[in-house]
Amino acid sequence: MPRQALELFIPGPTWLRPETRQAALLPEFGHRDSQAREVVSSIFDNLRAIAELPDDYDIALVNGSGSTGMECALRSLVADDDRLLCVTVGVFGALFHSMAIGNGKQVERLDFEPGCSIDLDVLEHTLRNGRFNVVTLTHNESSTGVVSDIVGACRLIRAHGALPIVDGVSLFGGNHSRIADALPAVYATTTQKCLALPAGQAILFVHRDALDKAAQVSNRGYTSDLLKHVEFGRDRQIMTTPDTTLLNQMQVQLDTIVHAEGVLQRFARHRAMRATVRAWATARPDRFELFVADADASPSLTTVSIDPALDPAALKAAMRERGYLIDTGHKKLNDILGAQSRRLLIRIPHMGDIGPAMLDRYLDALDSESAALRR
Amino acid sequence: MPRQALELFIPGPTWLRPETRQAALLPEFGHRDSQAREVVSSIFDNLRAIAELPDDYDIALVNGSGSTGMECALRSLVADDDRLLCVTVGVFGALFHSMAIGNGKQVERLDFEPGCSIDLDVLEHTLRNGRFNVVTLTHNESSTGVVSDIVGACRLIRAHGALPIVDGVSLFGGNHSRIADALPAVYATTTQKCLALPAGQAILFVHRDALDKAAQVSNRGYTSDLLKHVEFGRDRQIMTTPDTTLLNQMQVQLDTIVHAEGVLQRFARHRAMRATVRAWATARPDRFELFVADADASPSLTTVSIDPALDPAALKAAMRERGYLIDTGHKKLNDILGAQSRRLLIRIPHMGDIGPAMLDRYLDALDSESAALRR
Repeated sequence: MPRQALELFIPGPTWLRPETRQAALLPEFGHRDSQAREVVSSIFDNLRAIAELPDDYDIALVNGSGSTGMECALRSLVADDDRLLCVTVGVFGALFHSMAIGNGKQVERLDFEPGCSIDLDVLEHTLRNGRFNVVTLTHNESSTGVVSDIVGACRLIRAHGALPIVDGVSLFGGNHSRIADALPAVYATTTQKCLALPAGQAILFVHRDALDKAAQVSNRGYTSDLLKHVEFGRDRQIMTTPDTTLLNQMQVQLDTIVHAEGVLQRFARHRAMRATVRAWATARPDRFELFVADADASPSLTTVSIDPALDPAALKAAMRERGYLIDTGHKKLNDILGAQSRRLLIRIPHMGDIGPAMLDRYLDALDSESAALRR
Repeated sequence: MPRQALELFIPGPTWLRPETRQAALLPEFGHRDSQAREVVSSIFDNLRAIAELPDDYDIALVNGSGSTGMECALRSLVADDDRLLCVTVGVFGALFHSMAIGNGKQVERLDFEPGCSIDLDVLEHTLRNGRFNVVTLTHNESSTGVVSDIVGACRLIRAHGALPIVDGVSLFGGNHSRIADALPAVYATTTQKCLALPAGQAILFVHRDALDKAAQVSNRGYTSDLLKHVEFGRDRQIMTTPDTTLLNQMQVQLDTIVHAEGVLQRFARHRAMRATVRAWATARPDRFELFVADADASPSLTTVSIDPALDPAALKAAMRERGYLIDTGHKKLNDILGAQSRRLLIRIPHMGDIGPAMLDRYLDALDSESAALRR
């Protein structure tokens, strides 16, 4: 029996344009042949444009998910006797902490309240007393729908002599990366969020000083060795065998972003959709409440807490009947909120190639079904 | 300008059937939704059939390439104070050794001559004197075109109290895995070789005793933690966001292998094509010479050394004009052979969905072009 086709309104993997899916049918190629270098070169040129990337950054593609890239950066930049600080505003900030523990690193955690962004005064206080070598932070925390001021945070981190590693997974391609102002040692992102591609490639933007540091770190592993990945990247190759179907899709999609839609237009579209969703939720106080203040609101997805009378699972089932796959909140975060007898969250993504008309149709359906379920 | 479509005659990524490529157009799905569990369950059932897998093995899918899976096994089974032996009959056996060094493990290497398989007497001698905890070996060494007796080797390894990790990357799906007889702790493979799929997923078959051992190993990392991967696998999930395009292709392709072609028929087809290529090369002693003895010959690809008057790059260019991408030998191995003033190798793959008629056309073209270049 054929599977029901659902329109994905989840915060990754995101909905694919038909053209991106069709690009999967382009001819396969050998990953060490000249054709591969042409494809990777085109991908790198467009990634550089989307990132507004300074010249002293290398690009590397790493087979795997965003987590694979984040762990590669962590393992390659944090020596065993280094002190690492993981700044968290939600589940994905905490993921860096789990990775550090799993890799036997000496790590401390600075947690901010879910729904809030990084408080720079508190960060500075922590940095002043900690003598950290590396600090991780999350550009766009997709469990809470919070965007952080990575420029302010990275400048503080560098001022205290540490190297910042930024998780840009759910923001890159949806708004300015801010790499040129923030100067992170590594900025890690991936394909299946705002770039509106299937998952499968981690993307690393690597500053020169990250290479100097990695050269002093032992036990970087093999597939997690940042230096090897950058070496292959400089030769416009990928270290281990990549999925050439995905590379074909990346070439077409990134070219469309840069040369058809335009990078700034894309960013503006996402900001406009954020405004739409926030206005929509504000107009329905009986059922929805914004979880994040305007100043901290993510440009790629909006978190709303829901009326306790609304069962997220029932809402998901009703929306599935309408042909939509919705998000019922990050499970770990909702477990925490539930334990505190607080209202649960759902997430409304407006990232990738979701456009205003598509979003309006989705919000109309969500409005009807949520109203019907409360009757 | 559209890229020239080439028929891939390289030892991975392999040529895709049109139906496998088309499966990329199936609807995407959420990787934590019930639809994902259905897809992964179907994939697991068919992998179990292709592997002829005993019940006491778990399956895990790991985002990345075959190397990602191999490193995951190595990191999770080899403690820092363990003694590891890497048995090598070529470049891919040596890859395990590089991974061990990169991960700071205590490792020794037992090298056999390129073109030969593992000599069990020598292996036993090494095991008797070494007190190793873990031993890695390669089922099908695709740099040299050699298949090894992993049943004999794994039994010796286990008799000496060590856990075997087998790299089955370029054999799995092309011939019997022999897992049921060899009982490796972990057997690692991937999608883009004999399964005739794009790259992007490592596949791990994990024996119960590997889980017991991993539980005692610290510093397993996060995306390389075998225990986490098996935990997700038991829930028919993948730990980090997978490429659902590839999963759609896997579901269709594995179903075709098991239920349309049939596993035993597929294996027989590959053995028949090996015989074809070996007879073809033997009949052309002026240009080609088999590199591997019958007893050690890989069922998925054949290595032939070429007349020194034949320039591999010129042959590649001529075959490209005919619409083929050929393999000019593994660079590292050819560098070694060249330094010893020995004849260089090319590799003729007959893996995946390459069929007898397709192979015959390819060999005809290779015959004409190689003859023309020597004139």
